Amino acid sequence: MTKLRLGMVGGGQGAFIGGVHRIAARIDGAFDLVAGALSSNPDRARASAADLGLAADRSYGAWQDMLAGEAARADGIQAVAIVTPNHMHAAPAAAFLAAGIHVICDKPLAATMDDALLLEAAATKSKALFILTHNYTGYPMVRQARAMIAAGELGDIRLVQVEYAQGWLSEPIEQTGQKQAAWRTDPAQAGGGAIGDIGTHAFNLMRFVSGLQVQEIAAEMSSMVAGRRVDDNVQVMLRLQGGARGALWASQVALGEENALRLRIYGSKGALEWAQENPNQLWFTPLNGPRRLLTRGSGGMHDAATRVTRIPAGHPEGYLEGFATIYAEAALAIRAHAAGAARDPAITYPTLADGMEGMRFIAACGKSSSQNAAWVTL
Amino acid sequence: MTKLRLGMVGGGQGAFIGGVHRIAARIDGAFDLVAGALSSNPDRARASAADLGLAADRSYGAWQDMLAGEAARADGIQAVAIVTPNHMHAAPAAAFLAAGIHVICDKPLAATMDDALLLEAAATKSKALFILTHNYTGYPMVRQARAMIAAGELGDIRLVQVEYAQGWLSEPIEQTGQKQAAWRTDPAQAGGGAIGDIGTHAFNLMRFVSGLQVQEIAAEMSSMVAGRRVDDNVQVMLRLQGGARGALWASQVALGEENALRLRIYGSKGALEWAQENPNQLWFTPLNGPRRLLTRGSGGMHDAATRVTRIPAGHPEGYLEGFATIYAEAALAIRAHAAGAARDPAITYPTLADGMEGMRFIAACGKSSSQNAAWVTL
Amino acid sequence: MTKLRLGMVGGGQGAFIGGVHRIAARIDGAFDLVAGALSSNPDRARASAADLGLAADRSYGAWQDMLAGEAARADGIQAVAIVTPNHMHAAPAAAFLAAGIHVICDKPLAATMDDALLLEAAATKSKALFILTHNYTGYPMVRQARAMIAAGELGDIRLVQVEYAQGWLSEPIEQTGQKQAAWRTDPAQAGGGAIGDIGTHAFNLMRFVSGLQVQEIAAEMSSMVAGRRVDDNVQVMLRLQGGARGALWASQVALGEENALRLRIYGSKGALEWAQENPNQLWFTPLNGPRRLLTRGSGGMHDAATRVTRIPAGHPEGYLEGFATIYAEAALAIRAHAAGAARDPAITYPTLADGMEGMRFIAACGKSSSQNAAWVTL
Amino acid sequence: MTKLRLGMVGGGQGAFIGGVHRIAARIDGAFDLVAGALSSNPDRARASAADLGLAADRSYGAWQDMLAGEAARADGIQAVAIVTPNHMHAAPAAAFLAAGIHVICDKPLAATMDDALLLEAAATKSKALFILTHNYTGYPMVRQARAMIAAGELGDIRLVQVEYAQGWLSEPIEQTGQKQAAWRTDPAQAGGGAIGDIGTHAFNLMRFVSGLQVQEIAAEMSSMVAGRRVDDNVQVMLRLQGGARGALWASQVALGEENALRLRIYGSKGALEWAQENPNQLWFTPLNGPRRLLTRGSGGMHDAATRVTRIPAGHPEGYLEGFATIYAEAALAIRAHAAGAARDPAITYPTLADGMEGMRFIAACGKSSSQNAAWVTL
Repeated sequence: MTKLRLGMVGGGQGAFIGGVHRIAARIDGAFDLVAGALSSNPDRARASAADLGLAADRSYGAWQDMLAGEAARADGIQAVAIVTPNHMHAAPAAAFLAAGIHVICDKPLAATMDDALLLEAAATKSKALFILTHNYTGYPMVRQARAMIAAGELGDIRLVQVEYAQGWLSEPIEQTGQKQAAWRTDPAQAGGGAIGDIGTHAFNLMRFVSGLQVQEIAAEMSSMVAGRRVDDNVQVMLRLQGGARGALWASQVALGEENALRLRIYGSKGALEWAQENPNQLWFTPLNGPRRLLTRGSGGMHDAATRVTRIPAGHPEGYLEGFATIYAEAALAIRAHAAGAARDPAITYPTLADGMEGMRFIAACGKSSSQNAAWVTL
Repeated sequence: MTKLRLGMVGGGQGAFIGGVHRIAARIDGAFDLVAGALSSNPDRARASAADLGLAADRSYGAWQDMLAGEAARADGIQAVAIVTPNHMHAAPAAAFLAAGIHVICDKPLAATMDDALLLEAAATKSKALFILTHNYTGYPMVRQARAMIAAGELGDIRLVQVEYAQGWLSEPIEQTGQKQAAWRTDPAQAGGGAIGDIGTHAFNLMRFVSGLQVQEIAAEMSSMVAGRRVDDNVQVMLRLQGGARGALWASQVALGEENALRLRIYGSKGALEWAQENPNQLWFTPLNGPRRLLTRGSGGMHDAATRVTRIPAGHPEGYLEGFATIYAEAALAIRAHAAGAARDPAITYPTLADGMEGMRFIAACGKSSSQNAAWVTL
Repeated sequence: MTKLRLGMVGGGQGAFIGGVHRIAARIDGAFDLVAGALSSNPDRARASAADLGLAADRSYGAWQDMLAGEAARADGIQAVAIVTPNHMHAAPAAAFLAAGIHVICDKPLAATMDDALLLEAAATKSKALFILTHNYTGYPMVRQARAMIAAGELGDIRLVQVEYAQGWLSEPIEQTGQKQAAWRTDPAQAGGGAIGDIGTHAFNLMRFVSGLQVQEIAAEMSSMVAGRRVDDNVQVMLRLQGGARGALWASQVALGEENALRLRIYGSKGALEWAQENPNQLWFTPLNGPRRLLTRGSGGMHDAATRVTRIPAGHPEGYLEGFATIYAEAALAIRAHAAGAARDPAITYPTLADGMEGMRFIAACGKSSSQNAAWVTL
Repeated sequence: MTKLRLGMVGGGQGAFIGGVHRIAARIDGAFDLVAGALSSNPDRARASAADLGLAADRSYGAWQDMLAGEAARADGIQAVAIVTPNHMHAAPAAAFLAAGIHVICDKPLAATMDDALLLEAAATKSKALFILTHNYTGYPMVRQARAMIAAGELGDIRLVQVEYAQGWLSEPIEQTGQKQAAWRTDPAQAGGGAIGDIGTHAFNLMRFVSGLQVQEIAAEMSSMVAGRRVDDNVQVMLRLQGGARGALWASQVALGEENALRLRIYGSKGALEWAQENPNQLWFTPLNGPRRLLTRGSGGMHDAATRVTRIPAGHPEGYLEGFATIYAEAALAIRAHAAGAARDPAITYPTLADGMEGMRFIAACGKSSSQNAAWVTL
């Protein structure tokens, strides 16, 4: 099967998430990276493209050039990955969508709600697909958890505890030139701090798995490190659909934590627990029964988990495979779109609607926090 | 060394915590249970006393009788353990204190603030000691955690996440005659639900280890099971001394959880994590270093941990030993008191002041929850 | 119920296991320690007895004196705990048995096979009971494991992997005056090294849980630390009844391990795993099902586990409670014996036969190791 | 950088490891799969090639055809992955080597020692490279462990405990048409059972990390399932260089185990533990210090680990990334070879010598087992 032709905006030398997207796009062999505007610095863009073996005539100094150049080619890109800092998502995404090129965009959707609305408008007008890389939804055991809840195996959901704890910003490393820290703590580039960078992941994961709407939140955002310009810790109380309650905690000053995204959901008939750092396991406790350790690839998994599982149980799949699943799903959707076929309902990826939800969550947390943690309707 | 003579109020047949107190009092050999008013039902009181081998003339049908009887004996009890439901703590405790008999009382202090204040007044007037069995402070690794923070090994505390999750009330078992469930969900006997039964433990543990005052809380108390008359889930946001932030979660409808009391504290120089169900371990992560698994009885522990450690590393001490440490500390304090000696400052146990703090925490949560989770000063 | 009167041989100041026996004897309130010959050094014996509050006239300088003194009293001891180094087990045990006093003896049975045979002869002649403190059989989840296998829940046993790893002898601390290390590495006092001190525990645990006879062993015993006079590492291959195979590993130079006794048993229908350092859990995997984490005190336990469980799930019982269960079982057996009653078949404790098995295991390992790990029939 | 042109022998529809090799070859973008003889059944070979999008003229019905066809092309393959059952490794590997095409071969080296010797002879004569996919050596924390030992951080190695436990052959599924089980338990295709399939992995891992020669082994190989034609359980005692001792256990009837490869190494100054199912962690205990949990991507790692790490700590890399590292190392070595450059000594992959060691280990275990587990020199 011919590979889909992919371009990339951002992800040049020194970036983190661009490299992740490239590996993710390669793992299942569905995409071929053929073009890039890899940096807003033209020299770095070209050097980065050379590193990646892109053809010189498809190495662009700006995304606008790439859009023009690729749109003019018979073999132009069919999809573009946007992996820039948050404030640089909306403009290119809207433009590529307008040109009918599918967009695979990193999260959060945008740095500001205004940008997000522009992007939403563009997406609404375009027939091209928009895929948001809330990559944690790509883990097989996350899919399993979602399927179990959808099948009623937990009964009525009562409690949702989600947290995303990191410690890498425990010191003011943004003041000492660490590139990732610098843009992620710059309000102009990132929009916010922990709330957007990881809080939206936690929110999305909880929404994806539980299926429950969050009705109201009360949030307190803090900045724990002197001189930091964005929030680095967020505590949120949740009121969910159907009377469920819960809490969300996102922190980048939880010293010693690496990437501790963890979800616990308790229902009237069962409970689930999943942790990103050991993603091949899912704890399930049925009412009045012992805990069971469900494992990726083992017997009894829901189809939703099995169809995104690559290798047998006990052979751990990791972050890159979970991320790759978003790309694999995107590829399936793009091919179905190209064929004018009805899309297989099993295909699952985060959409623009999920991104808008994340933006509304960020906004609501900001509003609540500025009102002394008053409840805000989502 | 002669054992201290102990009486007990409550703890008759069918009770849970009374048996725990008795084992705890025996483990280190410092107490001899010699008298009891083990039930408010005189027949059950006598039968329970016979089970325990108490002398017939020291088996009482009511605590008032025991107080009178024991006070009149030359070999009367020196201390009394009060292990009744919450609403039955204050009256006997105050009376025994008034008679100069030391009181070891289960938590929470009382079912109502009025009762707590009466007890506080009685304790203030008495020279006898009052010990509250917030037993989780007796675990050696909890003492280690406290000592590390006191020694500055975590730097400035930024975050405190504490939770106490149980699932045993996931169904309305109080409606089917389960005795423990019945009184613990009866507002008249318990005062409240999860907030008093386990929320106060979580609060006390966090206070004990961190040493930080909690300045304000915002709480939402819920009742998740139809027909339940008390809260069975509590979400609390915390504002602590020095700008620290945190969350407290206590639940008795977290299906599948047994007794999952867990504390995480993050500072500017280090972080700690401890979980009650595996209490011999304490995770410590220093800034920029790998996680270290500190274990009870191993080298390098603070004296505060070592002095309450009974057996070598790898030989797990459990809940009963932690509880026994409260009794062991009580015995040391009582002997020092009897000798008129200055008490060794190393002796550590929860006091009436801790109990009053817990009562104020309960009250504040109730007030906040009734005001739509508004912040309440503690 | 009147407590049983207990004496103790050994366990004076500086000892480890004597203190453990005393706590174990106290936990369930069935014994009263009333006499002691706590050290072979008369002065230390008396000082130790004073520490424990023993009456002066029941504090003896030698076990022979205690035997004579107690046998002459109407209120003399009914049972004696023997907690001396291994070479001092047989003589007092045989003598107390001959006097009709029940014996609770630490393991291994003796330092030499000759001593063991003398003790066996004495026990055979006496009507008094002999209880060996292979304490790990007292853990509720060990009892659960045994009951599950007896009930056929694992099908035919195929594999038994047992290990007991410690690291405390990684350095030659016996040469620097550490008392526990000194006698435990002295061939004259201990008989052997790791093989007797912990290898017999591992062997006994595996036998107790699996119920399988060990038919042949091939062993290699090593001494890894310069100057050490006994084995500190033992590797054993096992051929068990019914074609099962397995391995036993005991080491005291496994640096960093504390008391890592761990048993895994695999059958045709299920598998179990238990680890002493987290003793309230038992992993069970049924054929084609997910792993289940069984916990002490939770629903669905076999009676054999429930009857030795003191407190609810999630409140960890530890080493001392497991040890106490041996004493509790001994008390039940002694009372039944005194009453001339048939003993409840549920009462379970390690016997002299278990001790003899352990001695034969030690001897077989020694023989095999001296024959280049040739197979030796057990 | 231009990708290396890769062919594949085996790995057609229904295979497991072929798909793993293909993903591994893609992850780091260094190879392009351009040709295949994917099945010994020509129809299946063609269908499989079509699935993968191979050009029709590079889809071959037999490896001999592929060798001829590719050798004749200017753009012929530069390397070939051999992913057939074991008995089909040697012939194609030798032939491709003879043609100067680099070989990346699955393990074990061959089904018989004769085949292995033929292959060794071919490799010796060829200038082309031979890479054996003992993929577990590709995990960053395995590289870290090796580097720590090489740097002396464990002192003198005393004990090596390695095990590889699987349960998937607990029932005779080879008799019911399960394709993987069928060939892996067929002596003609596999050579042996657990010993070759997973025992060699365990052996190789232990050798790779410890650096110690194994001098003698005593082995017992068993077949636990009725009708099985190969060993499914292997117990081995080890005598290693410098007086170290250890054990190796490999089983495919350890019910409930998925892919539990686990290595523990104890030295005079420190100890390490690593488990494949949670591969981003490495436990390290220094003498007299607490356990430390080293994590992939965190600070303080050796260069040997860092250079094969793709993404930050807390973002788990898995089995496929570890496997991909073998391909990435192969690519570096092939490019250096092509350039006539001295190879960077940091490049590390399993070689033919490692494969020959594995074959000698298999042979020694067979010999020992047939001699009642007598010691056999390796």
